[in-house]
Amino acid sequence: MRVSEVWEQVAQDEGGRIVLLVMDGLGGLQLPGKGGSELQVARIPNLDRLAAESSCGLLEIVGAGITPGSGPGHLALFGYDPLRFMVGRGVLGAMGIDFDLAKGDVAARVNFCTVDAQGRVIDRRAGRIDDATNRRLAEKIRAGVKLTGAQFFFQTEKEHRAVFVLRGADLSDALADTDPQHTGVPPHPVRATSPEAEATARIVADFVAQAAKVLQGEPKANMLLLRGFGKYHPFPTITERFKLNGVAIADYPMYRGVARLVGMEAVPPPGGVEQRFETLERLWGRYDYYFLHIKHTDSRGEDANFDAKVAALEEVDAYIPRLLKLNPDVLVVTGDHATPAALGRHSWHPVPFLIRSRWSTVDEVTRFDEVSCARGIFGRRRGCEMMGLALAHAERLEKFGA
Amino acid sequence: MRVSEVWEQVAQDEGGRIVLLVMDGLGGLQLPGKGGSELQVARIPNLDRLAAESSCGLLEIVGAGITPGSGPGHLALFGYDPLRFMVGRGVLGAMGIDFDLAKGDVAARVNFCTVDAQGRVIDRRAGRIDDATNRRLAEKIRAGVKLTGAQFFFQTEKEHRAVFVLRGADLSDALADTDPQHTGVPPHPVRATSPEAEATARIVADFVAQAAKVLQGEPKANMLLLRGFGKYHPFPTITERFKLNGVAIADYPMYRGVARLVGMEAVPPPGGVEQRFETLERLWGRYDYYFLHIKHTDSRGEDANFDAKVAALEEVDAYIPRLLKLNPDVLVVTGDHATPAALGRHSWHPVPFLIRSRWSTVDEVTRFDEVSCARGIFGRRRGCEMMGLALAHAERLEKFGA
Repeated sequence: MRVSEVWEQVAQDEGGRIVLLVMDGLGGLQLPGKGGSELQVARIPNLDRLAAESSCGLLEIVGAGITPGSGPGHLALFGYDPLRFMVGRGVLGAMGIDFDLAKGDVAARVNFCTVDAQGRVIDRRAGRIDDATNRRLAEKIRAGVKLTGAQFFFQTEKEHRAVFVLRGADLSDALADTDPQHTGVPPHPVRATSPEAEATARIVADFVAQAAKVLQGEPKANMLLLRGFGKYHPFPTITERFKLNGVAIADYPMYRGVARLVGMEAVPPPGGVEQRFETLERLWGRYDYYFLHIKHTDSRGEDANFDAKVAALEEVDAYIPRLLKLNPDVLVVTGDHATPAALGRHSWHPVPFLIRSRWSTVDEVTRFDEVSCARGIFGRRRGCEMMGLALAHAERLEKFGA
Repeated sequence: MRVSEVWEQVAQDEGGRIVLLVMDGLGGLQLPGKGGSELQVARIPNLDRLAAESSCGLLEIVGAGITPGSGPGHLALFGYDPLRFMVGRGVLGAMGIDFDLAKGDVAARVNFCTVDAQGRVIDRRAGRIDDATNRRLAEKIRAGVKLTGAQFFFQTEKEHRAVFVLRGADLSDALADTDPQHTGVPPHPVRATSPEAEATARIVADFVAQAAKVLQGEPKANMLLLRGFGKYHPFPTITERFKLNGVAIADYPMYRGVARLVGMEAVPPPGGVEQRFETLERLWGRYDYYFLHIKHTDSRGEDANFDAKVAALEEVDAYIPRLLKLNPDVLVVTGDHATPAALGRHSWHPVPFLIRSRWSTVDEVTRFDEVSCARGIFGRRRGCEMMGLALAHAERLEKFGA
């Protein structure tokens, strides 16, 4: 029996309200000349005070040395071990645009791209066409492509990005990306990576060929690149597993998608940090579990902009008193992975976390940063263990065994 | 291969004597106005000195967020992962009254209860009848009930509690509790939760119906409630697994039961804290492994009486010098779960532990409490890992691999 199966067995319908505040890419790294990591340098008096009143620790989101993508990172925080619950990026993309996936659908992420007269990719993002152009071309593809053997859906995401979904019997997602990841070469042909995907590969190849014809003559977006094929298997929801009625307050499709995948409701994108906290206030009392996602901490880390990431952390810090006015029974603050500005990308480094509740042991930690939280009473643990702690502190788990 | 399988493989017949001092419900929580947790506030100079001379850490007994019952809590301390070694409460109850269970027996816990003329439960504990009444009624039931298809045993535990055991071929424990857990409704009928338990359900239903007839006219105890059906599968013993010859010094049936389940001898209940330490002294030298159980630390926590729990800790502290005079090769001090007075019940919070031996690394910890032990060299680990550490410090484990 797994620890998470015990949570499922002893989870109660009633209990406290949990807020999960995710600062995307929270974890950082010391940068020479800056005097510490982003969190060590940031002036975050409210988060520091929270740390002083809370139980703290470090999350190794997936496992030792593993750099999580956003999907696994968030699944872990929601209590889904990413080593057991795997999901293709295409599925997340489809969920993120509120596409209603059915069991067995195969989804892929799409880039509109530009190819030259020889069919070589010269811009993998088709000059970042605007949303209106994307919608016009998607409509053209839906009208102009006729498949046999399966039904397809083609939906605009934003800019040059779209989602492709294939629906039919016995489809397989064992398909290689057609995106060559660099320019100067043609897109890869659609290729099955396993014999049972041959039929699906033929249908997708037919789709790509017909779409290319439809897009012929377009100045920028004259071809498609597909990647991250994934077959949709519904996950057990957080309601089924943990008896939680959850809501996601997030702007970006990816995060809304992964939240919907585990059965949260995803309210319309609030459109800004302040608006996200306002939305939380507005929804307060309607759910048991509130997932509030902050994106720009990660974005500034990916920009390799240390000072901007520090500023992003300080901006979020200023909203903490407002959040505390709601008096959540359990407040968790953490991230889905590290994005050190020093690296300019996601990393494997541990992510600080704190749980503030009436039942939290107050440990020695008085600063919310990587080094301070290493002394926390929660120690270092895998990301997917945090949900059990949050449920326990919300008095949502009964005793195990007599 | 599991870590515990390595212990089994490398365990030696010879080695040091281990004392496991379990203060039930040891872990606590800060209570506003008290200045800390029970352990932080208590004056426990002897335990603090032990901590200063020992290796310390925190035990998460079962797993993140999980509140252990006494059975899983103690199994973990004895080196049995409660997620693998599961045992029904009925089995523990039977072991706790020294009933000699045979493989395949199905045991349940019994409450005598009071039902009204319409058969509705009006007192789930039959006014807490005394032990003598319990014994008289048990005798009446043994004399008056005739079953076909299986043999039954009905034994007094204490007050309104008894143990029911069914012995026969192909019995199943997939039976729902008949205890409705509240008054004003009739007991649940005996119901199989799986098809293979239908035959067993019929036998148990027959037993309950006949027992009800026998009890008819009793002023208080005129009905039975059954719960926690469990089938007895003998566990591998600590002798088989770890080559330990163990003894349990405990007053309460539950703890004696779980100790016997893993092959310890359970000496007669000493009847008090001082008597328990005296019994240890008297038995010293006859066993390799001494499990000494202190109950009232947990009881005062369950009473939500912070000061009384502090006093209970201080009382145990006073016996430490006496215990040290025996000069055990390994002394482990810990608990089977937390019972913070702030909560008034078992909880998921981590439990401090220390291992004092000639071979213990002396770490930074100089106080035996939750926050101090978080800095200990053992870190935080699952309860079932502690046995391996105790065995190693007793020089009872050989090298693994060449």
